[in-house]
Amino acid sequence: MNITPGPLLGQIKYPADLRKLSKEQLHQVCDELRQYIIDVVSVHGGHFGASLGVVELTTALHYVFNTPDDQLVWDVGHQAYGHKILTGRRENFHTNRKYKGLSGFPKRDESPYDTFGVGHSSTSISAALGMAIASQLKGEHHRQHIAVIGDGAMTAGMAFEALNHAGVAKDANLLIILNDNCMSIDPNVGALREYLTDITTSPTYNKVRDEVWNLLGKLPVGKRFTREMASKLEASLKGMVSKSSNLFESFNLRYFGPIDGHNITKLVDTLQDLKDVPGPKLLHIVTTKGKGYALAEQDQTTWHAPGLFDKITGEIFKKPVTTPQPPKYQDVFGHTIIELAEMNDKIMGITPAMPSGSSLKFMMEKMPHRAIDVGICEQHAVTLSAGLATQGMRVFCTIYSSFMQRAFDQVVHDVAIQHLPVILCLDRAGLVGDDGPTHHGAYDIAYMRSVPNMIVSAPMNEEELRNLMYTAQLPSNESPFVIRYPRGQGVMPDWRQPFKEIKVGTGRKIRDGKDIAILSFGHPGNFVTEACKELLADGLQPAHYDMRFVKPLDTDMLHEIFQQFDKVITVEDAALPGGFGSAVLEFMALNGYHAEVRMLGIPDRIVEHGKPEELHRECGYDAAAIAAKVREMLKSKITVAING
Amino acid sequence: MNITPGPLLGQIKYPADLRKLSKEQLHQVCDELRQYIIDVVSVHGGHFGASLGVVELTTALHYVFNTPDDQLVWDVGHQAYGHKILTGRRENFHTNRKYKGLSGFPKRDESPYDTFGVGHSSTSISAALGMAIASQLKGEHHRQHIAVIGDGAMTAGMAFEALNHAGVAKDANLLIILNDNCMSIDPNVGALREYLTDITTSPTYNKVRDEVWNLLGKLPVGKRFTREMASKLEASLKGMVSKSSNLFESFNLRYFGPIDGHNITKLVDTLQDLKDVPGPKLLHIVTTKGKGYALAEQDQTTWHAPGLFDKITGEIFKKPVTTPQPPKYQDVFGHTIIELAEMNDKIMGITPAMPSGSSLKFMMEKMPHRAIDVGICEQHAVTLSAGLATQGMRVFCTIYSSFMQRAFDQVVHDVAIQHLPVILCLDRAGLVGDDGPTHHGAYDIAYMRSVPNMIVSAPMNEEELRNLMYTAQLPSNESPFVIRYPRGQGVMPDWRQPFKEIKVGTGRKIRDGKDIAILSFGHPGNFVTEACKELLADGLQPAHYDMRFVKPLDTDMLHEIFQQFDKVITVEDAALPGGFGSAVLEFMALNGYHAEVRMLGIPDRIVEHGKPEELHRECGYDAAAIAAKVREMLKSKITVAING
Repeated sequence: MNITPGPLLGQIKYPADLRKLSKEQLHQVCDELRQYIIDVVSVHGGHFGASLGVVELTTALHYVFNTPDDQLVWDVGHQAYGHKILTGRRENFHTNRKYKGLSGFPKRDESPYDTFGVGHSSTSISAALGMAIASQLKGEHHRQHIAVIGDGAMTAGMAFEALNHAGVAKDANLLIILNDNCMSIDPNVGALREYLTDITTSPTYNKVRDEVWNLLGKLPVGKRFTREMASKLEASLKGMVSKSSNLFESFNLRYFGPIDGHNITKLVDTLQDLKDVPGPKLLHIVTTKGKGYALAEQDQTTWHAPGLFDKITGEIFKKPVTTPQPPKYQDVFGHTIIELAEMNDKIMGITPAMPSGSSLKFMMEKMPHRAIDVGICEQHAVTLSAGLATQGMRVFCTIYSSFMQRAFDQVVHDVAIQHLPVILCLDRAGLVGDDGPTHHGAYDIAYMRSVPNMIVSAPMNEEELRNLMYTAQLPSNESPFVIRYPRGQGVMPDWRQPFKEIKVGTGRKIRDGKDIAILSFGHPGNFVTEACKELLADGLQPAHYDMRFVKPLDTDMLHEIFQQFDKVITVEDAALPGGFGSAVLEFMALNGYHAEVRMLGIPDRIVEHGKPEELHRECGYDAAAIAAKVREMLKSKITVAING
Repeated sequence: MNITPGPLLGQIKYPADLRKLSKEQLHQVCDELRQYIIDVVSVHGGHFGASLGVVELTTALHYVFNTPDDQLVWDVGHQAYGHKILTGRRENFHTNRKYKGLSGFPKRDESPYDTFGVGHSSTSISAALGMAIASQLKGEHHRQHIAVIGDGAMTAGMAFEALNHAGVAKDANLLIILNDNCMSIDPNVGALREYLTDITTSPTYNKVRDEVWNLLGKLPVGKRFTREMASKLEASLKGMVSKSSNLFESFNLRYFGPIDGHNITKLVDTLQDLKDVPGPKLLHIVTTKGKGYALAEQDQTTWHAPGLFDKITGEIFKKPVTTPQPPKYQDVFGHTIIELAEMNDKIMGITPAMPSGSSLKFMMEKMPHRAIDVGICEQHAVTLSAGLATQGMRVFCTIYSSFMQRAFDQVVHDVAIQHLPVILCLDRAGLVGDDGPTHHGAYDIAYMRSVPNMIVSAPMNEEELRNLMYTAQLPSNESPFVIRYPRGQGVMPDWRQPFKEIKVGTGRKIRDGKDIAILSFGHPGNFVTEACKELLADGLQPAHYDMRFVKPLDTDMLHEIFQQFDKVITVEDAALPGGFGSAVLEFMALNGYHAEVRMLGIPDRIVEHGKPEELHRECGYDAAAIAAKVREMLKSKITVAING
């Protein structure tokens, strides 16, 4: 369904069209852009609050700067819907986040205006600084490079690493825009949050700010800063604000602001002034996530990505529920950790900025001292968990699989080498769907199982998830324990079963068979179950084993399998190189087994976004693909059966 | 060789013995401790400058705090020699960094005084905060938790992530000691360095500092702060130093200092005063790396880990060289990048704080605009490189293999998904030797080859390294390109050969054979060559293939191999799960080959420190082990030959 834009927005295909408008017309552009986002997202879905919050900023940036020659990097990228609409993609915008449609994030393949692919937070300053340094080396001194970063993303370590470098890259034309809206998906936490609140409300800062803007206002209207004028400005500023008076100035950055990020005129004027101020600088703007849609302003977490809704009433549509539905895996985690924590007072929960996404929020509400949101900082989250573990605490550190990539060194160095029994819950493991390649949790089996001392497990369903969590926290477990589970719903409406210990390194035989053995790891076991139904109807007899652990492998079960079967299929929701299937091959080589083995899982290429079921089909490991592979491998047998 | 300690040091086995001495005797303890470190390191080797720099701090900490009940975390840990000597390990200290001897780093297995294993930088605040939070939960409010972190380590992002959390963990008894010595292994860089120089030299800061200490001096001597007094102090401080006047106070931390870290009396008094100030706080001390050994103070990089030396003359012993020696791999990198950069003006070099260790320093001297040390920040280094690559630059980003673990997400998210041709040079890949498990570059094959779009290569010698570097920077290469090479010397004295392109995904046949094929990846190819000599003498005919690429594999060569051979050995200097051998097994499964395959490499356990040759032997992939494995696999053949 295509949406009709307002009259001004309808004239804007590219920023060049925007730049033909007068400054006074920009208010209307912003209104129309905001309305367009509401219209599209309400019927097509997607992220919502973040893009509404930067409508004015987006408009001002493309109006003032000469994009794409001036280069714009949106941190994370959830907020880039307005940017996409203004840069040649309005007419395709209804395909946003759909299979084969536009990506929900900026993406280099999609447009020259998308200078850098994003998705994970806090990369924008590093990337834009790289571009700025390249421009200097190439003698392209006129180009500006802009990183738009939220205050949440600013808490991640790599943003500070980049600030530390930016502050001494004196020739780099880098403008960092700190978009201060107090929110990630959940409200931001930490000392930096308190600091920013302080400086946006303190009279001293506001006084300094006013003096700066007055000074800027005295410069001849319409005339751009020259380098000479800019350095005069800098000298004046230095007189007013002592170097170390501000966190960002501690990093040698010229700090401007805070200003109201919804005042389009002020934004345009400010950016115009800053445009030719050379070197690295930071503009602090204050915005409201969900701006312009009252419900979204009031409940920013719910409206981060609300799904489809009635834009008039604000009713968020839910699928009609007629029968009891299986829960989301994250909710099984969220409720189960509380049950366990009530039995074991050593249990704690740690999340880096995903209380809602991981459902640790339930525990944070119920046991606030034992469940902590530490902000966007996977590295700290893991090493903090290791520190807690040295004191006997049983920490469930829950991190999305693809975000755990950021804490890999901490897993190796602080958890595995020290053999500390930290429990690492990898939510969103496997293909995640609409968020696409940056968020697919594809590599965790390979990178976790290569590390000594690790236990690496995956539940096939909710009950198994509960039992793995139960097992991991028992005093008898002395090892780091990974539990990977997928995004979305499970398969068991009646999931809250009593806890049972699962012996580490044991799989389960789901069904006996004689023609072929199918070994699954994690939730794709359910695809195998489905495939088996089809195959049985065809008269085939596949055996199915849910291996549960890729490390340690159930070697007893594998001996049994390879003694009985000469055809084997492995199925996993993970990248094949180095994955579960690969671990099975290593077992075979070590034990001298030979068999025909086919490995199903994520192929060795970047898989784009789409619904999980679309992607499982595309990648060839949904039920139909598994059944087809079995038929292919048993072709001679089937031929015999048909002929015989 | 055991070293005799001075008379006071000789009485100190544990910190309890130290605490029996008077404050006045501590000067002498420090002198003796310093001398002991000089005596031992000069004849046994090890890190030097860092431990000399913290002799007073180490003594003061163990004197004032009730270690190990109060918990001390040394960031990185190079500086913990004094700590080891004072905590029960003096008599074994001569085994430091030797095979089966003490670890060069703090290590939990070794002593209860080593509360947290370290090696990589910037983990200490997270770990100590975890301990502090655990103590609060357990009601152990008396315990103090101390993280000693250098100003270099402070530039890594995870330190800031931890500060952001520490600043709101108001009940945590956390004391961060910022040991400001301006150095990592090389001089520190970045805005933070400039900031710290500012505040240690600025009169305003010194004035504030004096006021703080005067205030502290007015408190009754000998009496500890009570909580009430502490909060009065805090209130007074707040009056003097406005909240946002200091970088660390921006993070909500009470900031004390800077003070002279070599004044033992002042240190003891200060720590005594801070001991009972509750909550998170930071003490800034200024020290000199190498303090007390003039040459080490003057040339801190050379004396970071000088090897053996004459402690009187300061002469650093070098092995007598009679014949031309092969260069270090790092130097081949360091010289070759300059040659390439002279031909290709798009080439840049990036190192996170390892100009000396990576030998990028040669290029930094010769082409300062094109070779950048960005500080300890692997994450930023990789994403910066990606940003540069979007602008057509050819970046060699050189990072030790084990440190690259910290940038894994950036490799996936910013380099691989965007298919940017960043060249990732993994120095110190494989078992590194004396530094031990934290520094072994064991996992990079598994974690790199699981990611799509990557090229993953390893040279067997210096000439191959040069040619891989040459190939990676050619415009025809459009992919991320990993080159992993080991620590230490190569094998070719005459290494500077003209460049030749290596076709990506092609191996080399080193020798024909007929009994068995040995496939090597990287420098262990040289072990295979040696093993082959032995085996030939025995009348066996092993073939040897240097595969060069684990991704993409040379499938033509592998087809040839598996069509000819039914016995295959793979050899790699990397963890076996998911490694090179595993990639070969995946090829076999996909193509339906069956053969007896044995995989030699780093076994699935933590390998401790020792000389590389000791570790290769222990792990069973030196020349002798390879030859033995061949004999074992060809046993039947050998028996036939003997009998026939």
